[in-house]
Amino acid sequence: MSGFSSLDHQFMGRAIALARRGLFTTDPNPRVGCVLVKEGEIIGEGYHVRAGEGHAEVNALKQAGDQVRGATAYVTLEPCSHYGRTPPCAEALVEAGISRMVCAMVDPNPAVAGRGLERLRQAGIEVASGLMETEAQQLNPGFIRRMEKGLPYVRAKLAMSADGRTAMASGESQWITGSAARADVQRLRARSSAILTGIDSVLLDDSSLTLRENELGVENAAEIVKRQPLRVVLDTHLRLPLTAKILRQPGRTLVMTLSSDEARINALKEAGAEVQVREDGERLDLGAILEWLAQHEQCNELLVECGATLAGAFVGAGLVNELVVYMAPKLLGSSARPLLQLPLERMDQQIPLVLDEVRHLGQDLRLNWKLAGVEESDN
Amino acid sequence: MSGFSSLDHQFMGRAIALARRGLFTTDPNPRVGCVLVKEGEIIGEGYHVRAGEGHAEVNALKQAGDQVRGATAYVTLEPCSHYGRTPPCAEALVEAGISRMVCAMVDPNPAVAGRGLERLRQAGIEVASGLMETEAQQLNPGFIRRMEKGLPYVRAKLAMSADGRTAMASGESQWITGSAARADVQRLRARSSAILTGIDSVLLDDSSLTLRENELGVENAAEIVKRQPLRVVLDTHLRLPLTAKILRQPGRTLVMTLSSDEARINALKEAGAEVQVREDGERLDLGAILEWLAQHEQCNELLVECGATLAGAFVGAGLVNELVVYMAPKLLGSSARPLLQLPLERMDQQIPLVLDEVRHLGQDLRLNWKLAGVEESDN
Repeated sequence: MSGFSSLDHQFMGRAIALARRGLFTTDPNPRVGCVLVKEGEIIGEGYHVRAGEGHAEVNALKQAGDQVRGATAYVTLEPCSHYGRTPPCAEALVEAGISRMVCAMVDPNPAVAGRGLERLRQAGIEVASGLMETEAQQLNPGFIRRMEKGLPYVRAKLAMSADGRTAMASGESQWITGSAARADVQRLRARSSAILTGIDSVLLDDSSLTLRENELGVENAAEIVKRQPLRVVLDTHLRLPLTAKILRQPGRTLVMTLSSDEARINALKEAGAEVQVREDGERLDLGAILEWLAQHEQCNELLVECGATLAGAFVGAGLVNELVVYMAPKLLGSSARPLLQLPLERMDQQIPLVLDEVRHLGQDLRLNWKLAGVEESDN
Repeated sequence: MSGFSSLDHQFMGRAIALARRGLFTTDPNPRVGCVLVKEGEIIGEGYHVRAGEGHAEVNALKQAGDQVRGATAYVTLEPCSHYGRTPPCAEALVEAGISRMVCAMVDPNPAVAGRGLERLRQAGIEVASGLMETEAQQLNPGFIRRMEKGLPYVRAKLAMSADGRTAMASGESQWITGSAARADVQRLRARSSAILTGIDSVLLDDSSLTLRENELGVENAAEIVKRQPLRVVLDTHLRLPLTAKILRQPGRTLVMTLSSDEARINALKEAGAEVQVREDGERLDLGAILEWLAQHEQCNELLVECGATLAGAFVGAGLVNELVVYMAPKLLGSSARPLLQLPLERMDQQIPLVLDEVRHLGQDLRLNWKLAGVEESDN
């Protein structure tokens, strides 16, 4: 990882910034950026916009045109070496005649990692990797986790008061955070492959769990909302009302259940749901559901938006990678409901966290906590 | 407040920085800084170090010497006009022959506010006030509140997990925050006139509530610890053991009680305590205690360091100006003890806060919340 110049860092930084433009659109593909440089000048750049469209490298090559021979390519992710919906980028770079390739990280899929770089090396191209690897990894936590572990990267979104409470004991609640925090939640949804909730939350709030163009607060909102994240409702006994708002939204709603009530299943399907009857035993198996979503829905980043009980179950089972906690400037008092239903008895059962980021959102704070245990077992 | 130049701001900024040097030593006097300027150059500066020693203005005049005639004086607080332990500074400035006086704020004591400036005006000196008033007020929240309201500025120090808990239900607890947070608490104590706690905390932790030279983390720690803040223990039934550590520390320990058990009182006095038998009724009257501390102990800033029950009572009674919450990166779960014992039933009883500051302290966060209601009724 040594031997990179400050110019190398500068161009890779640019490639990462380009990749980030695809944050809300590339799903289920990774966000990737590419910069082509010749004699210290950028001659072409590109990023992946959405699945089925050109990869970052191809877009950059197109922009550079004939000048590309002898150029250096900076790419945030190892170029692909296989024929997918588009021809392999490694091949395209060889044909274009680049002389040096710098990539931030190798392909996280262990089955193909290094093959793209090997193809380039075979063609006599100078290859280096590992430049700004951490930043590149942060572009695609879900894609990487799915490739490496067959699981999505799971964020649990929570809102609490300054004393760690979510609603009054009576159940009385209201939006406790302000509009800036709510817009931020929209952007969390927009980067997610799927949003998971529990039936209790749906019954309580009749929530839609959609991206809304006028709430996203980003420029290309109209484009972004064309892809609605998959909505997943955990509904053990099929209590979801046929009139629920979530069934009348653009995009898909997948109900996961243990019930085999055919009539109810058919009625829900007619009302717009997809229904998966699982055979997990007495309870829905949260870990198995995550695996299924990664494998069958190419779910990279999963946003869990639910009540304290289900969120507590996910955390307690060690299935959450990150807590995104919106903290409102108020005290709700000690009778109010807890952040997570998570009964621990002894101090040595405490769950360690790592603070990743603190951000002001209007009057609220957003705290991003990584779950240290989950993080560690990943590495 | 208009008509100040950018040079005026620069010199007042310097005066405020000087005043801050007295943060841990001036008690019960206010922190004050002074800069004397002639032809755009600083010719003298000073700050108040400790009660009984020179005021900021006098220290600055001493440094400037003969050159001071015709200078501008920048002072963070209106110069005093009365004879106290030292002669009035307004008089000294007149005699020194300054031609212009800029002060950040007038004296917060309504009985004397403006008198010092009036004395200067009478002597033909150009006088302006209100420059960087907010910054100047932040130097002395306690002194100002005591002068204006006859009450100390009350900070409640709390430590919690990311989910708002302080200890396990069993009572099992431990330091949940790290060493940087603990050093910060030492500095909170060092700026306080007094530290108040409840008998339950003392029985549980056998705490000393002292400043410790090796934990303060500031340069002049040896000087600072010479003034130990008054320790106040609320002990309704005189349960404080005669062997309690808090009785064997440098500085004073004041036990406030409703008990009139003469033998116990005398024993505690012999063990080193001062004892005040109050006649508040069935319970110690927290508001009356604050008034007493302001009036009889010149208590400016009071640090409340106690358990969830007493802290909740202070907050519930609207007696806390600021919550200083140290947040540790861990989850303690929903069975664990609450931040504040503060039962609220309805959403409209929620207590609004204003976030004043967020600071990283090692792995922990410090959140400074102002209690909006208390703040408002002050203004």
